[in-house]
Amino acid sequence: MSNKQNIETLSWVEEECFARSRLRMIDQTLLPVQLKQIDCRTIETVWEAIKMLRVRGAPAIGIAAAYGVCIGLQPLFTDGNIPDEETFFAKLYESVRYLAASRPTAVNLFWALDRMKELAESYRGKKSVTELADLLLAEAKAIHEEDRRICRAIGRYGAELVKDGASLLTHCNAGGLATADYGTALAVFFAAQEAGKKIHVFADETRPLLQGARLTAWELLQHGIDVTLICDSMAAMVMRQGKIDAVFVGADRITVNGDTANKIGTYSVAAAAKTHGIPFYVAAPVSTFDLTLAEGSLIPIEERDPKEITHSFGTQTAPDGVRVYNPAFDVTPAPFITGIITEFGVISPVNTETIAGTVGKNRGKVTL
Amino acid sequence: MSNKQNIETLSWVEEECFARSRLRMIDQTLLPVQLKQIDCRTIETVWEAIKMLRVRGAPAIGIAAAYGVCIGLQPLFTDGNIPDEETFFAKLYESVRYLAASRPTAVNLFWALDRMKELAESYRGKKSVTELADLLLAEAKAIHEEDRRICRAIGRYGAELVKDGASLLTHCNAGGLATADYGTALAVFFAAQEAGKKIHVFADETRPLLQGARLTAWELLQHGIDVTLICDSMAAMVMRQGKIDAVFVGADRITVNGDTANKIGTYSVAAAAKTHGIPFYVAAPVSTFDLTLAEGSLIPIEERDPKEITHSFGTQTAPDGVRVYNPAFDVTPAPFITGIITEFGVISPVNTETIAGTVGKNRGKVTL
Repeated sequence: MSNKQNIETLSWVEEECFARSRLRMIDQTLLPVQLKQIDCRTIETVWEAIKMLRVRGAPAIGIAAAYGVCIGLQPLFTDGNIPDEETFFAKLYESVRYLAASRPTAVNLFWALDRMKELAESYRGKKSVTELADLLLAEAKAIHEEDRRICRAIGRYGAELVKDGASLLTHCNAGGLATADYGTALAVFFAAQEAGKKIHVFADETRPLLQGARLTAWELLQHGIDVTLICDSMAAMVMRQGKIDAVFVGADRITVNGDTANKIGTYSVAAAAKTHGIPFYVAAPVSTFDLTLAEGSLIPIEERDPKEITHSFGTQTAPDGVRVYNPAFDVTPAPFITGIITEFGVISPVNTETIAGTVGKNRGKVTL
Repeated sequence: MSNKQNIETLSWVEEECFARSRLRMIDQTLLPVQLKQIDCRTIETVWEAIKMLRVRGAPAIGIAAAYGVCIGLQPLFTDGNIPDEETFFAKLYESVRYLAASRPTAVNLFWALDRMKELAESYRGKKSVTELADLLLAEAKAIHEEDRRICRAIGRYGAELVKDGASLLTHCNAGGLATADYGTALAVFFAAQEAGKKIHVFADETRPLLQGARLTAWELLQHGIDVTLICDSMAAMVMRQGKIDAVFVGADRITVNGDTANKIGTYSVAAAAKTHGIPFYVAAPVSTFDLTLAEGSLIPIEERDPKEITHSFGTQTAPDGVRVYNPAFDVTPAPFITGIITEFGVISPVNTETIAGTVGKNRGKVTL
């Protein structure tokens, strides 16, 4: 994350020798109490960091995994060694399989690992293993850089929707901690601030895991943005008080018609925004669109551990044996969404035709 | 609270000798992990129980304080002693002042203490101190019994609105733990169940203090009512899924036009219910109406300690220095309320005329 102290969510620390370079990341499990970076010098530490949510957020996981593949190859190149091609590819496949098991439901993880694997395979027999290692590291950096550009572009388009002096609301964490840098929904706030607009942000704490309190509030404070933390159930009241000009959230998956799956509680905010006539924007790259799904009811909703609700942060806060419903996501139907901010512009109104116009045209076009 | 084990929120344990009788209560600070009753044998333990929220909820606090006045007088009557009238009244006033300081913002506390004091004063010089002590204990029991009858009546009227097989939603705790017995919103569920209707209840956990998770879920389980605990931000999603037939909540204060102050998050639920065309009911005795206030914007909203949000249950979950908005209540405007269930019937539609019709006619009529 690019913040005042220039502490990035993820960064590649380049040493002269490839085998000694390493992946540096903010350990997000320590936030907001402690800002600490860790250096991953082995594939095992990368695996553990993804598994234990030291790095989280779909794009950030993909980037970490791509660098992780490079780290997995490093032992072959220590002390000036050069492996043969067979050894190189065996290690590559082993690394990919190993990292894929760190969070088996993270779609971006597989996407990044596939991209690395396919790149190496496309040059097999055409390049030396040293050149292949260089190409893989360049690919990891490209994945990192593409995400950075996508976030900046989303920020630029989104900032045009923000008036000077605006009071905005967000839910969960769609920030620099979840991406290479800058985030998606939070990119809008950062870009508005950089454009000289004064803004105020209400951050929903986002139960049950409190990503809003732990991460979004922290990121906004780091950027010097005026932020007020509220409980999720206060958003409607604050809207009624006239304190919210617009809502910006991220997205996990968007269907062909614009229905949007995002962190649980997003739909509640969208419905309240509609009641109060407040614009509700989703900020997400075109890679978030799932063109295989016609509409939101087809999106599978993961149900998570009841203990996230019954045992909040180590304390038992609900009776033994109580039944719990703990969906990780909800779906906001397209009619509740004023616009979807992508790296290619704002889709508004949101419907099958406008989405096809932007997403169909730009799908797979990664360089902006 | 009358539950399967017949464990009451508050009960007076009568001994042959007045001076040895005592107030028994559930220590609500231990719920939902432990169900433990404590016996208050001194006015200091009553004071501490109110102060430390071992007993909470406006009606329950009033009842505890009324019994507390009697306990305060007990030392004058030990070992067969009979104090003179002056000593008796000095002790009475001292007890009232002392208990009033336990929770200086609890309106029901003062109401109950005033009622006890005024009763004694009305008989001063006409009755012996022994008779006065008996009259005061009878008055405390009357306050207790009146609240019980009010809750039962609210339950009866509310249950008529519940269909067999209904799935209902509530927010916070308007249950037997907050009253003499049975509660207000939860009384509706208990009465529906007793009338042979099968119901299912979704309980909002109710951030920041989780009264829904800690108390409502516990009470409903105790009564054998099928309950599912959710985070507050999930209510709108569950409504959209068609899982909610009606919402029932309590109230802290209702203005002349029907605007209703209740635990923070209530308005969010009411707005979501309106979006989804779901009936939204408030259950409250007529004593909840504040006829000095024309409408909801005049109700002062207490702001509570930011640490309730930033330090959830002992763990720091938000960055140092973040600004927090933590209103204890919100106001649901009358047009969002389908009906108000009182001990004299259901007010519906909710407006100044219908409220005057029910509340004006029955105000001060405590015996049903």
